Amino acid sequence: MKFTTFACDGQPCLGVATENDTVLSLTHTWGAGPLIDGAAPRDIGQLIELGDNALKVVRTIIEDQAGSEVYRHAAHTLQFLPPLGVPRKNVFCVGRNYREHIIEGNLAAGRDPHDFPKALELFTKPPTAIVGHRAPVKLHAHVTKLLDYEIELGIVIGKRGIDIPREAALDYVFGYTIVNDITARDLQKRHGQWFKGKALDTSCPVGPYVLHGSAVRDPQAFELDLDVNGELRQRASTASMLFGVAEIIEQLSAGLTLEPGDLIATGTPSGVGFAMQPPRALAAGDTVRARIGGIGELSNTIVE
Amino acid sequence: MKFTTFACDGQPCLGVATENDTVLSLTHTWGAGPLIDGAAPRDIGQLIELGDNALKVVRTIIEDQAGSEVYRHAAHTLQFLPPLGVPRKNVFCVGRNYREHIIEGNLAAGRDPHDFPKALELFTKPPTAIVGHRAPVKLHAHVTKLLDYEIELGIVIGKRGIDIPREAALDYVFGYTIVNDITARDLQKRHGQWFKGKALDTSCPVGPYVLHGSAVRDPQAFELDLDVNGELRQRASTASMLFGVAEIIEQLSAGLTLEPGDLIATGTPSGVGFAMQPPRALAAGDTVRARIGGIGELSNTIVE
Repeated sequence: MKFTTFACDGQPCLGVATENDTVLSLTHTWGAGPLIDGAAPRDIGQLIELGDNALKVVRTIIEDQAGSEVYRHAAHTLQFLPPLGVPRKNVFCVGRNYREHIIEGNLAAGRDPHDFPKALELFTKPPTAIVGHRAPVKLHAHVTKLLDYEIELGIVIGKRGIDIPREAALDYVFGYTIVNDITARDLQKRHGQWFKGKALDTSCPVGPYVLHGSAVRDPQAFELDLDVNGELRQRASTASMLFGVAEIIEQLSAGLTLEPGDLIATGTPSGVGFAMQPPRALAAGDTVRARIGGIGELSNTIVE
Repeated sequence: MKFTTFACDGQPCLGVATENDTVLSLTHTWGAGPLIDGAAPRDIGQLIELGDNALKVVRTIIEDQAGSEVYRHAAHTLQFLPPLGVPRKNVFCVGRNYREHIIEGNLAAGRDPHDFPKALELFTKPPTAIVGHRAPVKLHAHVTKLLDYEIELGIVIGKRGIDIPREAALDYVFGYTIVNDITARDLQKRHGQWFKGKALDTSCPVGPYVLHGSAVRDPQAFELDLDVNGELRQRASTASMLFGVAEIIEQLSAGLTLEPGDLIATGTPSGVGFAMQPPRALAAGDTVRARIGGIGELSNTIVE
């Protein structure tokens, strides 16, 4: 199952991807389910809060609505919203987590190319940075001259936990999404810690879909690629991660409670503009498309 | 005016400090105000959302209730809660912002002692870290051997803004509070970026009071001190900040929207345990008291 959140009648609606690139509104069909208690969820964050029973409701709705077209929409006609709704904390982000990206970053910074992190390098992006699929991303030319892209696999947490061992970690995952960790390279460097360069408004496109964990046999087998105006820039498999999904959850949750709806961006592979020769920055009018096999495509255009 | 949030009848209540170390419940007296629209606020976050008119209500209530004892409590009898309620994003934190602390940190790390930041070094602490006055702070002995304290002036943002020039910055401040930026030094170092060492559960005591900005002539004239079990460890004036309150707001808000209720911790002065010779860590049973003149005292005890 692939979930999404889209605008309908001026409000968020929870949807599920159905055949032929259509999306069925779960918000509008929720009353048909057998286990209903309370209002219909309007985004994936609310769906997660309803727990496992809600997924049974979803499966029943999908079966019951198989022939119905009333609440089914062609995906290309939808206005997608940030899938998790209004988040209640910053996005957790892992830095330098793909070998080739670490090497390109070390070379660009004049460091030993094989200086690999010994533990997760973690920073965050604030809720004010989050936007959805097809939302404009601001260039912020008055504060940065080096805006860059970073495709990342996003982990959506499904249940509360602390000190989660890697063996149990995938039980805490609700699903997977796409994150574009837009980064102001000059600010990232000037401010020492990375937060400022990672936190500008609209610098965190997410979505449009969250692929439920039950559909994922191995989170280290996702294929990622990203293009700018059709020019391929990044292509990799999550098999190349230094710290895999389960180990990320183990390290992050050590002494720190993860909560349902939390989003973790897991680092980007090589091919960022900053490490190109010469370095290349995003410009107004550029369209960045980030794709992860089985999850979908997240596309955003840069605006002044 | 000094506001606080405390527990009453199992729910948060908004209070205001009144004479002789008492706190008047505004939640219970709100109906007496002349400008009421909607429910009474239950924490300072809700008070801020109500805007400037709410402060007029508060002033009227204080005058009307001057002689009444019904909703007035001795402060020492109260169970204080995190003053801003449940936050909707991480706490913004400034690193290395007092000259003597930068020098002690550089010496402890074997760097040039006079290597000062050129711009704000920013990181965050998640909502799961926030606790109130007198709440226990966990030692997390299974993940850290070097838990440390850091007294900091906290800025509470009162209105939404982006690209705020320093000349106008204080107009965006609701008030000031005390933050203890509890830090796991070994994790801070091991994980490269500082987030992991700054983000453990219960590692962000805040409060108990927020001093309204109207009572503060100059935010660079606060006196801070912190003791551990009565032994003075930190003492400084906010006059020693590298980047003052107005400049912090200017740099942080460049391309990044600040929202009402946002909390910014502004860095700690010298005297942290990690930089002592030999380094000293917090232990179970230690009580850390952080005081800022005019705002109050934030006290927390370390527990296994």
